[in-house]
This record gives sequence, structure tokens and C-alpha cells, in this order.
Amino acid sequence: MSTFGEYFRVTTYGESHCRSVGCIVDGCPPGMELTEADIQPQMNRRRPGQSSITTPRNEKDRVMIQSGTEFGVTLGTPIGMMVLNEDQRPKDYGNQTMDKYPRPSHADWTYLEKYGVKASSGGGRSSARETIGRVAAGAIAEKYLRLAYGIEIVAFVSSVGNVHLFPPTAEHPTPCTNPEFQKLLQTISRKTVDEYLPVRCPNEEVSRKMEDLIASFKQRSDSIGGTVTCVIRNCPSGLGEPCFDKLEAKLAHAMLSIPATKGFEIGSGFGGCEIPGSTHNDPFVKNDSELPEVVAQSGAARGGFPRPRLTTKTNYSGGIQGGISNGAPIYFRVAFKPPATIGQEQLTATYDGEEEGILAAKGRHDPCVVPRAVPIVEAMAALVIMDAVLAQQARHTAKSLLPPLKQTINSGLPAGNGVTEQEVKQA
Amino acid sequence: MSTFGEYFRVTTYGESHCRSVGCIVDGCPPGMELTEADIQPQMNRRRPGQSSITTPRNEKDRVMIQSGTEFGVTLGTPIGMMVLNEDQRPKDYGNQTMDKYPRPSHADWTYLEKYGVKASSGGGRSSARETIGRVAAGAIAEKYLRLAYGIEIVAFVSSVGNVHLFPPTAEHPTPCTNPEFQKLLQTISRKTVDEYLPVRCPNEEVSRKMEDLIASFKQRSDSIGGTVTCVIRNCPSGLGEPCFDKLEAKLAHAMLSIPATKGFEIGSGFGGCEIPGSTHNDPFVKNDSELPEVVAQSGAARGGFPRPRLTTKTNYSGGIQGGISNGAPIYFRVAFKPPATIGQEQLTATYDGEEEGILAAKGRHDPCVVPRAVPIVEAMAALVIMDAVLAQQARHTAKSLLPPLKQTINSGLPAGNGVTEQEVKQA
Amino acid sequence: MSTFGEYFRVTTYGESHCRSVGCIVDGCPPGMELTEADIQPQMNRRRPGQSSITTPRNEKDRVMIQSGTEFGVTLGTPIGMMVLNEDQRPKDYGNQTMDKYPRPSHADWTYLEKYGVKASSGGGRSSARETIGRVAAGAIAEKYLRLAYGIEIVAFVSSVGNVHLFPPTAEHPTPCTNPEFQKLLQTISRKTVDEYLPVRCPNEEVSRKMEDLIASFKQRSDSIGGTVTCVIRNCPSGLGEPCFDKLEAKLAHAMLSIPATKGFEIGSGFGGCEIPGSTHNDPFVKNDSELPEVVAQSGAARGGFPRPRLTTKTNYSGGIQGGISNGAPIYFRVAFKPPATIGQEQLTATYDGEEEGILAAKGRHDPCVVPRAVPIVEAMAALVIMDAVLAQQARHTAKSLLPPLKQTINSGLPAGNGVTEQEVKQA
Amino acid sequence: MSTFGEYFRVTTYGESHCRSVGCIVDGCPPGMELTEADIQPQMNRRRPGQSSITTPRNEKDRVMIQSGTEFGVTLGTPIGMMVLNEDQRPKDYGNQTMDKYPRPSHADWTYLEKYGVKASSGGGRSSARETIGRVAAGAIAEKYLRLAYGIEIVAFVSSVGNVHLFPPTAEHPTPCTNPEFQKLLQTISRKTVDEYLPVRCPNEEVSRKMEDLIASFKQRSDSIGGTVTCVIRNCPSGLGEPCFDKLEAKLAHAMLSIPATKGFEIGSGFGGCEIPGSTHNDPFVKNDSELPEVVAQSGAARGGFPRPRLTTKTNYSGGIQGGISNGAPIYFRVAFKPPATIGQEQLTATYDGEEEGILAAKGRHDPCVVPRAVPIVEAMAALVIMDAVLAQQARHTAKSLLPPLKQTINSGLPAGNGVTEQEVKQA
Repeated sequence: MSTFGEYFRVTTYGESHCRSVGCIVDGCPPGMELTEADIQPQMNRRRPGQSSITTPRNEKDRVMIQSGTEFGVTLGTPIGMMVLNEDQRPKDYGNQTMDKYPRPSHADWTYLEKYGVKASSGGGRSSARETIGRVAAGAIAEKYLRLAYGIEIVAFVSSVGNVHLFPPTAEHPTPCTNPEFQKLLQTISRKTVDEYLPVRCPNEEVSRKMEDLIASFKQRSDSIGGTVTCVIRNCPSGLGEPCFDKLEAKLAHAMLSIPATKGFEIGSGFGGCEIPGSTHNDPFVKNDSELPEVVAQSGAARGGFPRPRLTTKTNYSGGIQGGISNGAPIYFRVAFKPPATIGQEQLTATYDGEEEGILAAKGRHDPCVVPRAVPIVEAMAALVIMDAVLAQQARHTAKSLLPPLKQTINSGLPAGNGVTEQEVKQA
Repeated sequence: MSTFGEYFRVTTYGESHCRSVGCIVDGCPPGMELTEADIQPQMNRRRPGQSSITTPRNEKDRVMIQSGTEFGVTLGTPIGMMVLNEDQRPKDYGNQTMDKYPRPSHADWTYLEKYGVKASSGGGRSSARETIGRVAAGAIAEKYLRLAYGIEIVAFVSSVGNVHLFPPTAEHPTPCTNPEFQKLLQTISRKTVDEYLPVRCPNEEVSRKMEDLIASFKQRSDSIGGTVTCVIRNCPSGLGEPCFDKLEAKLAHAMLSIPATKGFEIGSGFGGCEIPGSTHNDPFVKNDSELPEVVAQSGAARGGFPRPRLTTKTNYSGGIQGGISNGAPIYFRVAFKPPATIGQEQLTATYDGEEEGILAAKGRHDPCVVPRAVPIVEAMAALVIMDAVLAQQARHTAKSLLPPLKQTINSGLPAGNGVTEQEVKQA
Repeated sequence: MSTFGEYFRVTTYGESHCRSVGCIVDGCPPGMELTEADIQPQMNRRRPGQSSITTPRNEKDRVMIQSGTEFGVTLGTPIGMMVLNEDQRPKDYGNQTMDKYPRPSHADWTYLEKYGVKASSGGGRSSARETIGRVAAGAIAEKYLRLAYGIEIVAFVSSVGNVHLFPPTAEHPTPCTNPEFQKLLQTISRKTVDEYLPVRCPNEEVSRKMEDLIASFKQRSDSIGGTVTCVIRNCPSGLGEPCFDKLEAKLAHAMLSIPATKGFEIGSGFGGCEIPGSTHNDPFVKNDSELPEVVAQSGAARGGFPRPRLTTKTNYSGGIQGGISNGAPIYFRVAFKPPATIGQEQLTATYDGEEEGILAAKGRHDPCVVPRAVPIVEAMAALVIMDAVLAQQARHTAKSLLPPLKQTINSGLPAGNGVTEQEVKQA
Repeated sequence: MSTFGEYFRVTTYGESHCRSVGCIVDGCPPGMELTEADIQPQMNRRRPGQSSITTPRNEKDRVMIQSGTEFGVTLGTPIGMMVLNEDQRPKDYGNQTMDKYPRPSHADWTYLEKYGVKASSGGGRSSARETIGRVAAGAIAEKYLRLAYGIEIVAFVSSVGNVHLFPPTAEHPTPCTNPEFQKLLQTISRKTVDEYLPVRCPNEEVSRKMEDLIASFKQRSDSIGGTVTCVIRNCPSGLGEPCFDKLEAKLAHAMLSIPATKGFEIGSGFGGCEIPGSTHNDPFVKNDSELPEVVAQSGAARGGFPRPRLTTKTNYSGGIQGGISNGAPIYFRVAFKPPATIGQEQLTATYDGEEEGILAAKGRHDPCVVPRAVPIVEAMAALVIMDAVLAQQARHTAKSLLPPLKQTINSGLPAGNGVTEQEVKQA
């Protein structure tokens, strides 16, 4: 189904050639200031054709809120959002090459196998246009998470082809053991990321190499893949639902639902399989770091909620243990395959399998999707965290109305902040 | 929540020290022969302490069906299943070291942050015992998938530490481009995998190396991670729901919900990011391979359903395009971190953060979990495919009752087999 | 949440004063002809201000399909639908009487208690405008049900105030024992119902009495309630999910979710509590009635599916036994309270409870809602049946791929038609 | 599916002849004292064969908690519960009369149509034994609701056949306008109800009449229906989700899912259709009643949460307006049909429809189910309210972390207590 989330539920609609694409966001907390201006920036970051951030933006994918707000404040009721499609005319099926051959590694053939209806959009909802609804909904979730907890979500390009921001080395089979990488996770901002447009890899030299690599593939009418790394900072502890809905499981689900993704790893990831447990374990230490400004100004902080008493010395776990957030930065990496649409000629079979022929795409194609994938990864991360936050808030509040017992302590959300010490002493 | 699946819905319960662990399977098709004998084998493969397949099994984790069958046939009603816990006595909280220090990289601390209740099981449902319900439910799904479609699901260990069955090379940054790997996926069986116990890596030499590596970690009271690769053969086309519930997204969700997992990749995966699109695209070819015996005997084949007309020449996509299965083998790899419980001493903080001290686990610990993870990966894969099959069967049947139109063809499930050619010609 | 259904999932959005109201229908079978022309007629029947069916309709609530169809055929992807709001200007809160006093028996106060946001719409989504999305979605479901099974859903007004179409008598405490009533259920059509506009009670004399009664309440600036009876004919057997989602439970849920409803009864209903079991039981008889034309032309009939072998002599059960449809007509009655908005002055308290004052509604008010409720009841009934049909189709298809056993027979959907006899003999 | 609720999710399993019946409760708040002793009393009230409350109880349906608690405190993880079946031997199908004839108005035939499997239990999960899981889960919900809010749920028998506790009169077409009835709702307790065993109608004279009526039906080997009325007191305001999940819609769903039910009405119900709006509207008045003891001791009260500022003078709405609770007592009535199993001979058809014959049930049958239905109605009411409470707690907490705005006020849960006045003045 086209729905994501249980508590903050997003339902999207729309293909490439219909009237509009959009979504309904159900479960947004009431009483939050919200207008299109909160949503449009991420829509713009998602749009194709951004050669630099200084480019005058022709805001084509303009989002229109249909319901759920009044005088710029959320009512708590479903928020309908819509973006018009420019090309609303579906093409009739004729004898064109594309109608005869399913495009290799596209969704043309699998959609036909699934639905049994020939559509001019071919792969139907596998279109990149479908991600518009996700980005719009994600922007709403992000705003809440920032206001309520000071949560920050930032994604950036970490590799294009074999050009890596942190190439695997003997010392660091995974970047997570590299202090430079961990420092970047602590500090990187969207503003910084966008200074490295068009590639969005926050390193002058690596970024230039990536740009060159992409250009060379473009020249050959070929394409190349890459990875996006994302960090979620200031996340409260206690998020994630045992046992099927562990926080990393939901993140993996969310990321692999983005078109063209092939892999997901959290924390140490695949590289972590090669590190001894004695190194990989993250020892606990007292959490005495200073409160970031954005957290200090959040609703949770205003409510007097302290932060978790403990944190971990290293963070190979990626901020999640036993499927539940521990308050440390959550970070993960997503693999994107080379785009399937290429200008080169490809030999492939007709729908009926009786013939083989040559297929070559016309027009301009994106030789690498990772720069544009950045805001989509952020949006899906926001949807996962938002849902987990609401779930944990419900549990925490429910528990808070019960008489205190010897075995129980105050912990978790809204503060994500276990006033563990005192309570445990009392017990 | 502790529920997985929409159509074939599995709900599990149970911690380490309670009376029993188990699950309810809701949505199992009626009229299928089913007894405990169908389920126990995978339960045994999951159990700890299997040094070889010839070892006489003391079937401790004995599953008992509570409901949903009569005279060995499923009724279509919920199937309750239960496995007794041997150690049902929760330990009282005292002044033991484990009660004072949350174990590093375990779920002790995050569970306390989440629930605010001190439990003798520490990480509660993050216990490996929780996977019993999954394996039991998965065995039921597997039986149906085999009877109805001839689907085969086989997982095996593909790496332990830095010992790989198919080490990445310059030529093959991902094994998916290696013909040896693709051939293994076509032929590997559970029987073969279990011939390589205790490691379950189907290669004499590599398996021995892995065994030695694990032994060396054991000796040092340390632990090491590894990866499990899984293949799903004979899967019908058309499985997977756009856009949030793409088949690979559900698989990723399922795999990352298994304790100790850190990563997931489908098809070419992370390595695929480094392959040019012109190579990575899978051209379509006519599907004229012989029908495997297990498929020929399936319900779908008996119903006269032909297979998909097309297949792909290469299979870098991993059997899924646009989130929907294309009939080719689905294969993916799952990363497992080194187990957190190690005999070595670890310096860590107390719950209240006021002290640091030394924690060392006693008793026997598993220095590497991947061999036992094999049946759990298979079980979760079966649950995902089962759910997708039922969803697509519903859609296919619904469509089949509508008047045929110019744009529509017969395709997908139950046959997964688009009688595409003829229908398109008529249109 | 604003979502209804599991398989045919409808999500609605919109208040009175926002840009538009609408819905997303997810799970519509692909390959069905569908345009706005299939949906608009029920939208028109729902609109206010219909004094007679011959009145020239100014189609104000014009539905626009946004996605999910191409060239008038459903793609299987989500169908977005939208209806513009005419009055899109929310009113600012001032010192008006309505802002000071919550309207008695409206949702003004409870919405404020729930969401904590003052909205110009007062009761937010409790507005009658919210039902637009339901009616649009219901029209799609109805079309499928008719094409696939020949299902017909017809509702009509059965009482206004104390004027009943079938008043309870000593002989017939419930109309279900009255042959006249049962005959009406077998034959009534929407066309006939609309001949009795403005009241939609299909009896010349009773209809006129109701009209007079409503007029008298209008004159007094007062309001009155009534009941709507609905019948679902040609429904396949086997619909409804044990045990929480019995078919009558879903119907009750659906009906009580319509604004202003206060009660629901199925079959013999409350009156049935007073009938002895020996009378109330419906004996089985062979089903040898002629196939209705609409069924003969349905997809199920074209597929060669016979009807259920049995039917019941009487039908006090209302077509459902043990929560599952038995193929007999399903009928139920829904109670609507008198509209809360009346022109009469009412003494009530201010929001803060500190004062009492007089509140009187201005403008034109509907003194009785039942005539307009007719298409809404039909729409919600269609959504329930559609969801149950898809669930049962999934189960039936899943079972059909299993090897036949001694205990199993072919039955239920797609045919709803147990070829019970022969199969049982073989067994 | 066999699952009820979104936040407090109950999944049940079990038929009449399997090993056990039971359920999994997922989403129970952590940190609540809970043992079997909290659950068994309602299990006992549900059991057959209670001729009076003084009867020594042989506690046959003994519930065993499997998981989710430790040292008598809930962990927040799923609570598995089980009750053994005494008669675990399914009967083989032979040539018995019952195997040849589907029992009239039972679920034998519809289950066969639905599942296509012949089962010795006939109607499978439509068995009264299935309600055991509901009652067990309901008892847990009730305990939380009482501790957290002082909520009280009491059901009683309001009619048997045509003997009514409050017979409809010209003055009071519905009891809701009768002050005696409203007073009873305010004061009735389970203890009082059980003083009127075996009928559970809290009126000496009416109770005796009902007992006589039931006896006369028993003598004739016949059966009779009746109604159960239920009141939920001290419910916070703000419960119920627009628009499909209005609180009355969920209650209707829950009640109609109980075996043998035929109708549901809330507040004024069907009788309310005949009352003018000017009478039916409930004017608001300041809420200055004294806090009941059970509320004063609740977690909400301890948290300093005041009650709603307003209440209604009359309560024809039944405590719900616009689908949302307003803090006034919620009351509703449920219709139960006469039991289908009667000793009298019945003429009916064979499964294959080829023959008609005589069917007569043997053994002891319950001629009227309403007395035993009382705890089941209470349990389902508790499940609905529990789910709504958790949903509203989540929303309320989410909102509380946002910066206060001009349009927003504090209201609703956890306190259900809109400190409306002050806040509005500030705004």
C-alpha cells in the first residue's frame, strides 16, 4: 500500500502523467505553525536541474496545502498536499520503440506483470515524481522534531562510483572508526552540504573528483551509482519498537523504498563484521557534554527534561542498541545504483520475448542520482523518527499515570532523558 | 509492535525468563497439511550447540501447535504456537555486577530508557529467544510457498570476519558479477549448507578457514561478525507493493529486525554503486529455461499457469525491479556484528553514570552468530514473500473478474506468468 | 486516523473552510473502466438542496480524479480525488456569539478538548463536507462490486420521527418478519427511491406524511431524526473475518462513523430479541432461484462460478451468520438523531463555564438529514463489502493452489458458490 | 483478522477443540502491577453455570500469563495469556446428523463456505470460547483505566424478551429521558449487578420476571434474546478519532463483534430519532460536581489535572459528540438474539441441499445468553476506551512540546480536562 507510518501516517498518490501528485499526512500534532514556506525548501532541493545553490530558482514543484491548517497553524486533522504535474497528457500507446521493449532494469515489465495494465508511464509509481509526497511530508515531520527535541537530520553524498569521501583502508574498514568521520557527523549542516553543489559531498577535493567522474560518464552516455550518508543528531533515547520494528529496521525499510536503492548499513555496517567484538562494543560513559543550542530551545528542554544520563564512548552501534535509540547520533549509509536510463544503445527483448532489438533513450538523463537523493533520504529518515517519537511519547505518558513501583523509574521520552540516577537510588 | 505482515500476520511474545515464548500466525491459508513435524526442523537448526548435523539432537525447543489445525490440516483460523522456556525463574535484582552496569552494546540500557522497568532479562525482547516465534511462523510460510509455487529459500554464511566466500576483487567488486556466485545461487540447497556445519559456508576450504578464525576469537574471549547470503528461487513475478512497500524494502525491514544485524544489500548492493549503468542494466531475454521439478509439481503449475515470458540475461538487480519481483532469483546479503557478550573485561559506566568499573561476562558465549542466523534469515525471508504473495493473489483475482479491456493483459500471480504474448497481440 | 479499510483503503482529508476536500483510494483493482462520470451521480445525490430529481442540477461538488487512471482505466495505483471548497475563507475568531458558546450537541467543544486549537470550523472534521470523500470512494467500490459479482446496494428512508414505513406491530415487532418488507428488500432500486424525493421513502402515502412532519418541524425552527434502511443484494457467501471483524461489526463501525448516527441493527435487530429462537432460526433450503440478470452478467458468473448451493427459508439473520455472509440479502437499519443546528434559541454555557446565555442559529438549516444520508449509507456499505470481498478473494485464491485434501472442498469466493455438493461426495 | 485495537492490540487464537485458547496483548503500559488475580474474576463471571454468586466456583477457565510481566509488574512487552481447553479431542466426521445438516442460524455453513475445510467445531471461531481472550485482555485494560483515570465500566441486563427494565413509554420512547435510568447509570456497580444473579438485571421485580420468562423458554426447549446496557463513567474528554474511528463507531464495531449480537445504540439511540432537536440537544453547563473518590485517587488526579470545565445538563448524546467523548457518562445498549441452539426439532436442508431433515440439539443449552454476555460487553468496552486513551495521550503529549500559540489551549488528556478558561482568556 502507499502508506508509511503508524502514528504519523503518510499516504501518497500520483504518477508522472496524471493531474497532480501529492499526499495526505495524518497524525500531525495540532498547534504547530505550518505554511508552505516550511515545506518548499526541501521540495526545491529535490528538484532536478540545480547546478548551484545561487541559481535563481524557478519554483516549479510548488506545494499547495489543501487542509489541516488554519491561519498557519495545524489543526491536528489530515494535511492534504498537492503539486501539479506539468505534463499531464498521458501518451497513447503506438508503435514506438519504448512500447515494444521493456526498458532494461526499469519497472516497465514488472509493473505490467503486477497490474496487467499498459500505462504510458511504464513503471507507474516507480517514477521519481512519486518522491514529491515523501519530501513534503518529511518537511512537516522535521519541523516538529526540531521544535520538540532539537533533532537535526543531515544527509550528504559519501561516494560516487569508486570515489569515496572516506575510502575503506586497512585501519578503517568502515569509516565509523575514523575520528574525522565521527567529527563530520557531529558538525555537518545542510547549509554546508549545499555549498558543495552540484555533488553535495562536503569536501572540496573529493567533490571535484566526483563531479569529474560524473561528467565522464555523462559524456559516454553512461551512468554511475553512489552512496548517501545520513546523520540524525539529538535524537531522544528510547525510540524503536521491539522486535519487528527495531529503529534500524524501519530506517532500512524507509531507505530501500526510495527508487534505485540497493543497500543500507547502520553504524559500523558491513565493515563492522570484520572488527573484533572487544573493539566494536561501545562502553558507556557519563553524558556530560554541553547541551546544543537547538536542544536547549526545544520543547523538551523547556519542559525541564534532562538528557540521558549516559552516552557511549565510541559509537560503532550508530546510536541504536537492541533496536532502540540510545541518544547518540544515528548514522547510516544508503547505496544507489547507476540510473537505468542511459543514452547508450542496449540490446534487449520485446515484451513478448519473440524478438531482440536495440533500445536507446533520448533526451537528457541524470547520469548519477545521489545529489538529488539527499533531501529524499532526509525526508524518509524524518518520517521514521517522527513515527517512533509519537509511539514512545504514547508509552511514556501512559506509564507516567501509574503509581510508581520499586522496579520502575522515569525514563525515555518526552525527555528521552532518564532521570535515571535519582529514581534508581530511591528504589 | 510485535507484529509482522499484513496478510500473513505474525505476532510474537516472550522474553528469556517467562513461562514460554511463542506466536500467533493469522492469515494462514486453510486446507494445508500442517503438523509440528513441518516446523521442528528449522527450530532445531536455530538451536545453539549444534556441532555437526550428525549430532543426536535433544529437541529442547519443541514447538506445540495450540490452535488453527485439526487432524493435521489448517483451518484458516489463527495458529497459536508455543515453546516452553527451560529457565522460567526471573532473577531478583541485587548487587550483582550485571545489575550495576549496563552491558556495552547490549540492550540493557536502551530497554530501561524505553520502558522504565528494571527486568532480569535486561534487554527484554532483544533476546535471541525471541526469534523462536519467527522461525516457527516462517516454517509455515515456507511450506505454503513450496506447495503453491515451488519457491525455495536457502541461506548460507558468506563471510566471517575478513574471510569471504567470494572476496571482493578488482574484477568483481560485488560477487554478483561472478558467474561462480550466480551458479551457486541457482543450485545451493539447505542439505548442502548443513554439510558444512558448524559454519554453514558451502565451501570446504573457506569453511575451514572460518572455523579456525572463530576458534581463535573464542580462545581470546573475543567475538567476530560475518555475513549471511540468502537466495529465493522460483519466486513469481509481480510481488512487492509500490511505493513504500517495495519488495526489497520489506526484506530490508525483515532482516534488520533480526538481532545483531547492521546491514542489508540486494543484488549488486554497495558494490553495484561502482559499476557503470551500461554494465549494470539487466537486458531482457526470452525465458525458455526448463521448469524446475519443484515448480512443475506446484499448485500454480497444476493450475496451468505458465511462467513469465521474459527473464533477464544478467541479474544484477537481484530479481527485483522497481520494487517488484521479476521472476529471477532474489538474493541479498545481511551483515551481523560481532556478539556483544564477550569474556574479556570491559571498562564501562554504572547505570547512574557516577562510576566506571570492569564488566566481564561469565559462562559460554557464542563467538560468532552467523551459523545460527541462517534459519532465522530464511524464516524472515519466507514471511516477507508470503505476505507479498497473498497481496498479489488478492489483486490478481480481483482483476480477473473484470471485463477484459484493450489496455489490459493477464499477468502476474497466481501464475506470476504473464501470458503476455497472446494477450498483447489481441489488443 | 482518517483511513477506512485494509485492502481497499480510503484516506480522506478536508474541513469546511480549507482549499478542497478529497481522498486517496488505495487498492482499487487495476483494469477497471473509471471516469468522473461513474462517481458524480452519487455526489449529486449527497448534495444539499435537492427538492426533486427533475430539478436541474448545478453540479457544485464536482469530483476531479487526480491519479490512478489513464485513458479511463484504473492502473491499480492510488486514486487521488478532490472536490474544491467554495467558501475557502476561514473566519477569524472575534466576539461573535458562536465563538463564545460551544453549540449544544455539536462537536465544537469536544474538538477543542481533543486538539486544543480554536478553529473557525468549530467541529472540524465532524462537518458533513467530510462525507464527500466517502461517497466518492464508495462509488468506485460499487462499480467493482457490480461488475465482478452483480452486487446491488440500495438505501431508503424507513422512518422520520414517529412515522414509520413499517411501524412495529404486535405481530411484527421487527419488520423483518413482515413479508411486505422482505419483498421490498428484494426489489427496491435507487431509481425508485429517487422517485420519492425529497424524502426518499418508497411509499407514496408514508412519504407524504414524512414530508409534512419535516415541514412542521421546519416551521417551528426545530429538527427531527429518522432511520435509513439499506439492503445489499447478490453478495457472495464467505465475507467477513472472524472474530473481531465480523461483517456486521464492520458495517456497524462504518455506519456509526457517519455524522449524526445513534444506532445500528442488522437483520431482526433489537426487535429480534423478543422473538423465540424456534421462530428466529433460519432453516436452510436448496437455493434454486433464478440467477438475477445483473449477476448473470458479472465476472463471477462469466467465470463459471455457480451460486451457493443453499439459502435460508427466512432471513432474520440479515444475510450474516457467525459474522460471515451466507449469500442472502444483507439488510440493516441506521438511526440518525435530529440535527443539532436549530433556529430556536437555546440556553447554554460559555466555553469557560462562567456564564450562561442564549444561542440561536441563523440561516437555513436542514430540519432532517435522513434523505441526504441515503447515498452516504450506501457508500459506507460499499466500502465494507469491497474490503471483505478482497480479503476473501485473497484467501480463496491462496487455498486454491494447495493440493486438495479429504477434508477440503471448494467454496466461497470468487464465486461465493461452494460447488459444495460434488466435492463433498468425492471426499 | 483476529486482532483488535491499534495502540493496545489484542490478538486471539483458539477454537473449541484445540489445546488452548488465548491471546497476546501488545502495547500494555510498562510498570503496572498485574497478576492472574487481576484477570480471573472477569473470567469467572464469563463462565457458564453460575446460578448465583454464592455458588462455590470451580475455577475451570484458569488464565495463565506466559510473558510480559516479571515479579508481578508489566514490562511493556507483549503479554501472552492462555487458558487450556478441557475437551481437546476434535471429533472425526462421521455420519452423525450434525455432520449432514448445517445447524440453522449457526456458523457451520458460512464457515465451510468461507474456509472450505470441514471442522469438528463447525462454526470454528464463532464459538463462545473465543471470547475468553477478549475478557482476559479487557481485564488488563480495565485495570489501567481505573488506576490512571478512575474509569468505571459496568454492564447489566436491560431486557429479556419483552420484559424491560425500562419499558418504552409514550413519555420516554427511550430510557435516556427517564431520570431513574440516568440515576442508575451514575450509581450502578458490578457488585450490585451480581447480587441479581442469575439474570444480572438490577431490579428485584423485573429480575424475577426475566428469570421466569427464561425458565418458560427452557421448558419449551426454546430460547429468547435480550439486551445489555453498559455505562462507562469518569471517561476523560477528547477520546475518539475523526472521522472513521469515532468513539461510538469503535464501540459499535466492538459490540457487534461479540457472538449473537444484532444491534447497538448509543445515548438516545433509535428512540432518539423520535425526539425533537430542541429537546434532544444537550445544553452545556459548568461542571462543578464533586470529584468521585476513584477519580481523586487516579494518576491523572495525582498529576494535578482538573476535570473538564463544562458538562452537559442532559445527556442524550451518551457522552459522545462529533465522535469524541465529552466527559459525561458514555452509555449504550446491545441486542442479543435468541441462541440458535435449541432442543426443539427443526426442519432444514443437508449440506448438499438435496434433502431436508429434522435436526434437534441434545444436552443442556443456554436458553438466554445475556447474563453471561455482561462481562464480555464490559471487556470489549474496556478495549475500545483503552485504545482511544492511548491515542489521545500520544496526541496530547506531542502537542505539549510545541511552543504555545494564540490559537492553542491546553486541553484533553492526560487530564481530559481542558484548563480551558484561563488559557482562552490569555489568548
